[in-house]
Order: sequence, then structure tokens, then C-alpha cells
Amino acid sequence: MWPRTDLIDLLQIEHPLLQAPMGGESTPAMAVAVGNAGGLGGLGCSYMSNDELSDNVALIRRGTNAPFNLNFFVHEPPVEKPEVYARTRERIATFYAELGLNDFPQPLQAPCDTFTQSRLECLLDLRPRVVSFHFGLPEADMVQALQTAGILVISSATTVAEARQLDAAGIDAIIAQGWEAGGHRGTFHVSNDDYGVGGLALIPQVVDAVEVPVIAAGGIGDGRGIAAAMVLGASGVQLGSAFLSCPEANISDAYRAALQSSSDDDTRLTAAFSGRPARAMNNRYIEAMAQSQHPFPDYPTMYSFSDPLSQAAEQSATAGFEFYLWGQSAALNRECSSARLVALLVEETRQALNGCAGTPQRST
Amino acid sequence: MWPRTDLIDLLQIEHPLLQAPMGGESTPAMAVAVGNAGGLGGLGCSYMSNDELSDNVALIRRGTNAPFNLNFFVHEPPVEKPEVYARTRERIATFYAELGLNDFPQPLQAPCDTFTQSRLECLLDLRPRVVSFHFGLPEADMVQALQTAGILVISSATTVAEARQLDAAGIDAIIAQGWEAGGHRGTFHVSNDDYGVGGLALIPQVVDAVEVPVIAAGGIGDGRGIAAAMVLGASGVQLGSAFLSCPEANISDAYRAALQSSSDDDTRLTAAFSGRPARAMNNRYIEAMAQSQHPFPDYPTMYSFSDPLSQAAEQSATAGFEFYLWGQSAALNRECSSARLVALLVEETRQALNGCAGTPQRST
Repeated sequence: MWPRTDLIDLLQIEHPLLQAPMGGESTPAMAVAVGNAGGLGGLGCSYMSNDELSDNVALIRRGTNAPFNLNFFVHEPPVEKPEVYARTRERIATFYAELGLNDFPQPLQAPCDTFTQSRLECLLDLRPRVVSFHFGLPEADMVQALQTAGILVISSATTVAEARQLDAAGIDAIIAQGWEAGGHRGTFHVSNDDYGVGGLALIPQVVDAVEVPVIAAGGIGDGRGIAAAMVLGASGVQLGSAFLSCPEANISDAYRAALQSSSDDDTRLTAAFSGRPARAMNNRYIEAMAQSQHPFPDYPTMYSFSDPLSQAAEQSATAGFEFYLWGQSAALNRECSSARLVALLVEETRQALNGCAGTPQRST
Repeated sequence: MWPRTDLIDLLQIEHPLLQAPMGGESTPAMAVAVGNAGGLGGLGCSYMSNDELSDNVALIRRGTNAPFNLNFFVHEPPVEKPEVYARTRERIATFYAELGLNDFPQPLQAPCDTFTQSRLECLLDLRPRVVSFHFGLPEADMVQALQTAGILVISSATTVAEARQLDAAGIDAIIAQGWEAGGHRGTFHVSNDDYGVGGLALIPQVVDAVEVPVIAAGGIGDGRGIAAAMVLGASGVQLGSAFLSCPEANISDAYRAALQSSSDDDTRLTAAFSGRPARAMNNRYIEAMAQSQHPFPDYPTMYSFSDPLSQAAEQSATAGFEFYLWGQSAALNRECSSARLVALLVEETRQALNGCAGTPQRST
């Protein structure tokens, strides 16, 4: 039923539907369910040690023979910036006081490394079908080592220029991540937040610019969005938020409840949690941080400042400091298993394409 | 060939393609060409006196019997804000100095009124098929007077909430204006710039929320975008930037040259020209104004401060102060007549829909 088969052929999957490898929220159970349903399951692995990563891959392989995708952040290592730290402490001091936090933690207690040589070696051992990157690509020889080992490499582009750069690097497929997407934007270099290109504009322009299959991501909530992405020229799609409402998602009850009442315009881009722009449910903290244009500490150092806030707020059930990540179509979410969701999406896409098809050949 | 015919039937046109009634850039010649090609031509009329409006309508009617759309801004009347004026003067003083401007003009020399009773009476006289509004709707009795006279009323929504509000007001069709769109965002109340919902997310959610036909706008550059909007559930589309490259567009040579080298990510939302967020080609002035979060004078009073800058810059060929409005798909533009563009778009849409069609009925 799919209008393009290049991505299906490349990944050796039945449906060109990728479950976004959300760091923290995706789980081995989700990747298993999606893989067994004919899509490509994924796991966000940046916050795992190599041992945890190996254990999780074993869990996935116990559940499925289907291919899967492991995702890694490839941010620049954070630079120590005492002046920025001082300014950041000033900006959040009232929130620390409000939540009864007395001590600022040490910065640079980064919750994740960038992509390292030991990670590469671990992956050459584990041999997943697909490794995906976010924020660009690691060194060229690392990409080549993965590809030489038969691992497919993909990464995200948020502009045509980034897509061209990825294409020139010889990777196997490119995710065109639109403005609508929840979670961290894949922009290679952090810049002003409001430059994001929406999917309707980004997808066809990326398709025109690159040679490899394009996977559309961002704001795709049901089969209509998948069909639209295909019509725009994409060979596949990646959905994240849609899977957050599945029982396999690793999110708290409060996160799940907030997601249930989400709307089209309840999110905002913010770098105030991690140091890099991410689309998250808007709240008091995000609004307050947006009042000033001062830069935050580099990703992921900013987590050292924001984590105590979100944790203290959660413990005291204080609203306004949540880091709940979802995109602009989360209000279309259905609560069902990941396997059922894949089947639903396939059927809806078929219907959406058929509903607009059957147009006669040029009649005049 | 069109998957939905409700909008075609309502507007009594051949193709559900609206040419955006761009204030300043659209012309009677463009509306004539689009109407004769089977689309709905439009004219942005907010900056015209009633006499000019009548003359332009006569020009359109001399060229075509097809229906057309007259567009009006329905902003709140600007409020005098001396403190904001003072702060704005401070912010732009260096630019005034750079361009050799010595005197700040009087604010509140607004280049356009909001929708007035005398405008309504003029329209009841002129009887266009369609009147469209931007920034909301005028008073309910004005809307009713237009509809009673057989004039169709449409307006733009940038969120589901705005769309519901328009639907409840009983208007005839709703434009879902995505984040990608060039020109002024139709948001009813001015708020922070970066809340915009991308079309892939906005269109299906608006379609689900309202009863009347939905017209998708923003980031649609060719037939692929039109087909995608249809697949998302829209009954029609509105394109603005695509028509800017046509000879019928009223833009300067410099504007046209800049447009020819546009890219997916060369625009930015800014309120620094008019007082309301508009998507325009990014430049030095826009960047500088974005460095501070202070509010600008109300729309359209801010023009009193920015117009001298853009004019002086144009006269001295100084780059960095242009107010060039286009959306995120302008790089897809083709240089051809408006009539040819409509024919091209129709043919491309047919191809895009057919290219993804022919999927068999459910096989399992």
C-alpha cells in the first residue's frame, strides 16, 4: 500500500513507520511491540551506560527478531561558563527559594556524554540494524565504522541546509524534523528558538534537496498526517508523542494525565531545562525563563540547574516546573497498546490516501 | 478531481485555490487572473480608502465575472502608550541616526483603520462574493449584515480555540493559518511569537473541531502541499507567497530579487514593523529588535516608527531594514503569470494525489 518503498527496502520492515527513540520515555517493550507490528521500534540511549545499553538490547532481542533503532545525542561537549552559571543562578533563585532548595548543585554534572569511542565499540558489538543521531553526526570515521559493520546510520535535519550536510556525509536516510515536533530539536548548532521550519514547508524542500529517503517527523498524530507526509514526498514517518499514550511509555502518572488534556497550542520551545531548545508543555517556569534572552549553560549542563527544580516540584506536587515533552498533535493521541497503534496508523493512512485518490487523468 | 467539493460549491469556483489577499502586494490584475483561471482571487483592502476600494473593485469586474475576495484587518483600535513610544524611540535611535533621520514622527498616524461602519456600507454596495477578515471578526451585527446581503464571510484561525470561536460566530469557512505562513499572523490577540502551530498539526485538529469547510494556509508552495492539505482534511487552500513571484504582484525590484534567493529558513516572526507578529525575511533590524522583550506600540501604530526606517533604507540602498513578507515555502516559487500558476498548481495536485493513490482495499 505504500507509495514509496525505498525506506521499507532499506530498513527491511513492513511499514515505513518509525517510533521515535525518545530518551527516557521509550522502552524496550515499546520497541519490541512496534517491531513485531511491522514498524521500526527505537530506544533513546544517551542516558544509559554501555552496560545498561547492552541489557536493554538483550531485552529487545528477547521479544523480537525485528530490526530496531538506537539513538544517541552528538552534542558538542559543554564548555565551562562561570558567568553564565552565575547569571542562571540569579534567574532561578526565586524558584529555588519557593521550592525550599537551599544549595545550587555543581554544574557540569552532565547526565549524558556525547557519542564516544567506547560507545562506538559497544555498538559494533551489539550490531543494531539502525543507529540514529540527534544534533548532527559524530566524527566521519565513526559513521563509517558503523556503516562498514552493516549498521544503517540516520540523523535529523531541521533545515534544508542541515539536510544537505547530512546527505553529503553519506548517511542512509534523513529525518526531516519539523517545528511541530515534541522534544529536543535536532538543530546542529543552538541558535534562536523561533526559526523552526514547519513540516508542510520543510518536507518537500528536503525531499528536493537530498538523494536518500526522507523520514518526516513532527506533528504527525494519525494516519492523515502520515498520508500527508507521503504526499509531500517523504518515504516514511517518525512519530513520538503518539506513542507516549501507550502503556509501554515510561512516563509518570502526572505526565500521562497532563498529556490526556493536551491541546494544539499548549507547548513551547524552551532551552530552560537542558540548555538546548526542546518542545515541552508550557508552564510557569518556561514562561519566566523566556522573559530574558540571556543564554543558558551548554547542553546538558543546564540540567544540573533545572533537575532539582523539577524533582522538588514533583515531590511537593507543585505545578509549573514540569518537563513534559510532546508535539503539537498530541491532542490527537489514542490510548492503546503500541502494537494496536501501529495497526491503527496503517489502516488510517490507507483510508486517507484512498479518500483523496481516484482522481481521473487530465480531462481537458 | 477534488476530494471535497463543499468549498467549491460554497464559493462557486472551479478549483478550491484561494490567492491570499495580501495587503499591498496583491492587485486587481492578480485577482482577475486567478478568478479567470478558476481559483478565488483576492485583494487586501485595509490600506485603501472607500473610494480606492470602489475603483479597485471596478477594475476587477472589468476583467472577470468570477467571484473575488476582499480582505480587511479587524484589529483593536490602537491605544496611546507614551511609555512604550519612548522606549521604542530609544530602541531604534541608533538606526535612525545611522540612516540620517533626525526627527521621530508622531505616533498614531495609523496607515489603516480597523473595520468601520462606513466600510461595511461600502461593501454592502459593492457586493463582493467573499469578504475575509484577519485578526478575528468585526462586531456580530456587521458579520450578519454582510451575510444577509448574500456575502460570504471567512476569517483566519491560528489555533483550534480560535477556529472554534469563528465557527460559533456562524461564518462560512475558516482559514487554518499555520506557523509557516508569510505575512501577518491572524491571531486574535497579540501574544508571544513562538506559540505558532504548524500546518501538519493545525489542519487536522481544526477540521475535527469545526463544522464549516477549512481552508489550509501557510507553507503551501506547490501541488504537493495542496494535496497534503487535502489529505489532512482541508476543503481548500490559500497561497500567498507563491503569487509574489508572478508579474501581477505589486512588489519592488529589490523585494523580487530577494525573493528569488529565498530559502526555507530565511524568515522570522517579527512585530517590529507593524506592532503585530508577521513572518518576514530576517534582517539586521529584526534581529536587533528581537534582543529585547519589551512590547511594541499597538498595531498599526508601530508603522509610524518603522516606516521612516524602511523608506530611508530603501532610498539609500542600505540592507537590513526591509519588510519583505513571505512564508517558509517561498523557495519553491516559480516565475510565471498568475493564470499559469493556478493551472500548474491544479496539475501538480492531481499528480501528487494520483502518485500516492491506487492503494488496494484492506487485504487482511
